[in-house]
Amino acid sequence: MPCAADRLLRKLWGQWKTHVIYVLGEQQACRFGVLRRRIAGISPKVLTTRLRELEADGLVWREQENSIPPKVTYGLTKAGRAVHAVLKDIEQIDL
Amino acid sequence: MPCAADRLLRKLWGQWKTHVIYVLGEQQACRFGVLRRRIAGISPKVLTTRLRELEADGLVWREQENSIPPKVTYGLTKAGRAVHAVLKDIEQIDL
Repeated sequence: MPCAADRLLRKLWGQWKTHVIYVLGEQQACRFGVLRRRIAGISPKVLTTRLRELEADGLVWREQENSIPPKVTYGLTKAGRAVHAVLKDIEQIDL
Repeated sequence: MPCAADRLLRKLWGQWKTHVIYVLGEQQACRFGVLRRRIAGISPKVLTTRLRELEADGLVWREQENSIPPKVTYGLTKAGRAVHAVLKDIEQIDL
């Protein structure tokens, strides 16, 4: 297995990560609350952790506006969008 | 998110699962020992568990010949091959 594929598949380990990428890929940018409502079953704590991991792995970007309360927006990076495009193909698979 | 995609993404949760599908997809059928050597870092116990889960989810088939010792072979089902084809696209992604 090519190292690049191995590295990337490891970045997708962890429950909900592929769901976060999948839902984030459906729009340009997304607030935390919207993301949480769109991923049925995920807790705020797990979503926060996954977003931090995906950001550290270069698949998600995070922007914070210093309004009161602060406004935080998330979106997919170029690599994140490439992973999303691959995951979208999963819709065609008939189990 | 379409239910089918949600269901399938959940089946790919769990460390090493996508690695197992990836490596199994490189050949028609594969013995346990060969599979274990091809997935660097996986333990026999985890590989056994993942194969059982993937078989239960209809992504992997398992065949046992009643020789002494029994010969067990694994391979991807049609759905497993479809997931493999999607995962292969990950090779094109440049992180």
